[in-house]
Amino acid sequence: MNIVLLSGGSGKRLWPLSNDVRSKQFIKIFKNQEGDYESMVQRVYRQIKKADSSASVTIATSKTQVSSIHNQLGENVGISIEPCRRDTFPAIALATAYLTDVKGISEEEAVVVCPVDPYVNDDYFQALKELSALAQQGEANLVLMGIEPTYPSEKYGYIIPTSAEHVSKVETFKEKPDVKTAQDYIDRGALWNGGVFAYKLKYVLQRAHELIDFTDYYDLYTKYETLTKISFDYAVAEKETDISVMRFAGEWKDLGTWNTLTEAMEENVVGKGILNETCENVHVLNELDMPILCMGLKDVIVAASAEGIIVSDKEQSSYIKPFVDAIDQQIMFAEKSWGSFKVLDVQEESMTIAVTLNAGHKMNYHSHQRRDEVWTVISGQGRTIVDGMEQPVAPGDVITIQAGCKHTIIADTQLRVIEVQLGEDITVEDKCKHELEE
Amino acid sequence: MNIVLLSGGSGKRLWPLSNDVRSKQFIKIFKNQEGDYESMVQRVYRQIKKADSSASVTIATSKTQVSSIHNQLGENVGISIEPCRRDTFPAIALATAYLTDVKGISEEEAVVVCPVDPYVNDDYFQALKELSALAQQGEANLVLMGIEPTYPSEKYGYIIPTSAEHVSKVETFKEKPDVKTAQDYIDRGALWNGGVFAYKLKYVLQRAHELIDFTDYYDLYTKYETLTKISFDYAVAEKETDISVMRFAGEWKDLGTWNTLTEAMEENVVGKGILNETCENVHVLNELDMPILCMGLKDVIVAASAEGIIVSDKEQSSYIKPFVDAIDQQIMFAEKSWGSFKVLDVQEESMTIAVTLNAGHKMNYHSHQRRDEVWTVISGQGRTIVDGMEQPVAPGDVITIQAGCKHTIIADTQLRVIEVQLGEDITVEDKCKHELEE
Repeated sequence: MNIVLLSGGSGKRLWPLSNDVRSKQFIKIFKNQEGDYESMVQRVYRQIKKADSSASVTIATSKTQVSSIHNQLGENVGISIEPCRRDTFPAIALATAYLTDVKGISEEEAVVVCPVDPYVNDDYFQALKELSALAQQGEANLVLMGIEPTYPSEKYGYIIPTSAEHVSKVETFKEKPDVKTAQDYIDRGALWNGGVFAYKLKYVLQRAHELIDFTDYYDLYTKYETLTKISFDYAVAEKETDISVMRFAGEWKDLGTWNTLTEAMEENVVGKGILNETCENVHVLNELDMPILCMGLKDVIVAASAEGIIVSDKEQSSYIKPFVDAIDQQIMFAEKSWGSFKVLDVQEESMTIAVTLNAGHKMNYHSHQRRDEVWTVISGQGRTIVDGMEQPVAPGDVITIQAGCKHTIIADTQLRVIEVQLGEDITVEDKCKHELEE
Repeated sequence: MNIVLLSGGSGKRLWPLSNDVRSKQFIKIFKNQEGDYESMVQRVYRQIKKADSSASVTIATSKTQVSSIHNQLGENVGISIEPCRRDTFPAIALATAYLTDVKGISEEEAVVVCPVDPYVNDDYFQALKELSALAQQGEANLVLMGIEPTYPSEKYGYIIPTSAEHVSKVETFKEKPDVKTAQDYIDRGALWNGGVFAYKLKYVLQRAHELIDFTDYYDLYTKYETLTKISFDYAVAEKETDISVMRFAGEWKDLGTWNTLTEAMEENVVGKGILNETCENVHVLNELDMPILCMGLKDVIVAASAEGIIVSDKEQSSYIKPFVDAIDQQIMFAEKSWGSFKVLDVQEESMTIAVTLNAGHKMNYHSHQRRDEVWTVISGQGRTIVDGMEQPVAPGDVITIQAGCKHTIIADTQLRVIEVQLGEDITVEDKCKHELEE
């Protein structure tokens, strides 16, 4: 089975664990059978490999998520990188071209496209295999998964099938309705549109060529910024007449708010947290080093990261967005291609950060115009290059870097460094990259 | 007026803002008329000076609080330092001897003794003046303040007066009762014993000489550790026959739990915090740099410091102690005689801390056996002495200190330093003090 996972943008509804640089699908929140915590993307990837160990998985996402994906899934997963966000039709066209032109998959093969973040069981992945087979057999140009509704939701679009059979033709699509209309749809046999569908590669390539002037993947990638933002539903699905839907009645949850996310947690506390015996339906997600003590709370979510802390009634937590928009947020923690960093101390003319470089990785060779830096190595082995001079470094070594000085650090083993930045005007923009002659 | 403020020990009921090294009376929580936040001790000191600008204030406390007291009240406040905790009778005897032998106050003068942490209005301090005058006039050997009870509390001892007059003789004392007994006492005209009383210095000196073999303040200080733990009530008040009580009917609150403390707060949020419009009776006390967002909560206290975070129903918060006892707490922030420190990062073989030295202060001259240190100066001007060599330091300067090396830093202006400690076994015990030849 070929599968494309659409890994969507950053969301604020799960602040402070998701934000402008970190998306909800990377939060490690689910305990797996080995007792380790895994993220949505890790859980889905593991489930796919369990259902079909030879599945070819490609993640369609933006540049900002590449580091997190490699850190969580390893280096072997395929990634179709969107140079910028252009909605689902350009993203799916690019990923489809990636499968044929980069992965060398035949245009006659089918692919299943689905979101990276549904909370589902193994039966969902069996259904994906069935969906793939239907597309491969030529059941229709496009075969959708229709999810049996469990309540009249306003959050989803609806698919109206022509019959109640397991697989049937699609009569029409309906936009997100109000509750009453949703109930009418359900009474007519409508299914939720979960954004899951399968097609033969050549089908979407043909649609793409009709709508976009491009030769191959590389050409499409280059002109990606010039493309119009348009959804796959609008550009393709709603215009297609040869289209089928396959029913799926298993568990399917969209974990988009603290309320729905905590429903899927097996434990009430992830990280350092204590609930006293009078707490009811309380969940704590704590990424900080300090403990959170909860007493006498009911239906409350507490989530904490270096960005901030939310304490909310679970129902209320879905109204979080405008409050988070109003917070002037400094990025305090980020995963990078080379490791991660964490801001420890911010003063008027200094900033102290803890940097972790993964073994075999290095920073870009760079300089700053308006700040000096002092590195103190606290663990690991590696090398620094400062103005062309390379030297080995080990715990206790101190490297001082004046403004203007080119520098990098290379981790031979995992390397941890305390970096003190000193200057009147410390910004991320103050960075010049340089070529390193090696 | 001479006044001795008893500044009690550390408490855990206001964790994480009070702990083993920080007591509740130093938490800056009350907004004064200038819009600045002040602590209980600062509020009480300001109120005393307003009631009697020439009042001589002495704080009776342990060594561990001296830095915090000087930081919050300045260098001019008198402090009677208890070398160790020996309950209230030795503490009051020591403070009384301090007033005569160190401050040179006549034994014929009266003094008022009261706790440092009641939440009261200006009328309370007028009552203290009246209490002092009564003792000075010889109304009785000991003149107590009796607080008009507002409910049958189990938390206080009771004083039964012989009459309902404003000042009357004391018939008897009663220990903390159950609610029913408390109501009986109140029906008989009993008053709360708030631990406030006045006497002429010679009176307590005489009692002290009867019970302890000592010559003067210095002798008493030296043998303080050998003294028996005994309360002033038990050693003196309950045995005294010439004893009066003066009624006080003004506001008097004991802010010992989050529930009572937040009742006295004028604002719902101290520090970075946001309450949405569906929050009711929610208080946030946030000492962290990151924001706390509260949504849809009712009757909840959220308090956060570098030690941890409590989120509690207000009623429930009084049961906090066993939970805090169970937390293995590393001290993450502390005020010192020379400034303060904050732990930024803890790893297996390193610890990074931010150190602030107040102008004119210095660290002890010391060395460590099992760790190296790297100091990076981030702001201010000063000098370091490393193995006897003095050198000036300014922002950007880095000082590396090998294990065994004697070192100190002297702040000419307020000085901030990032200190990286490196070693396999980093403990506060690994510290040798040395004499500095100057």
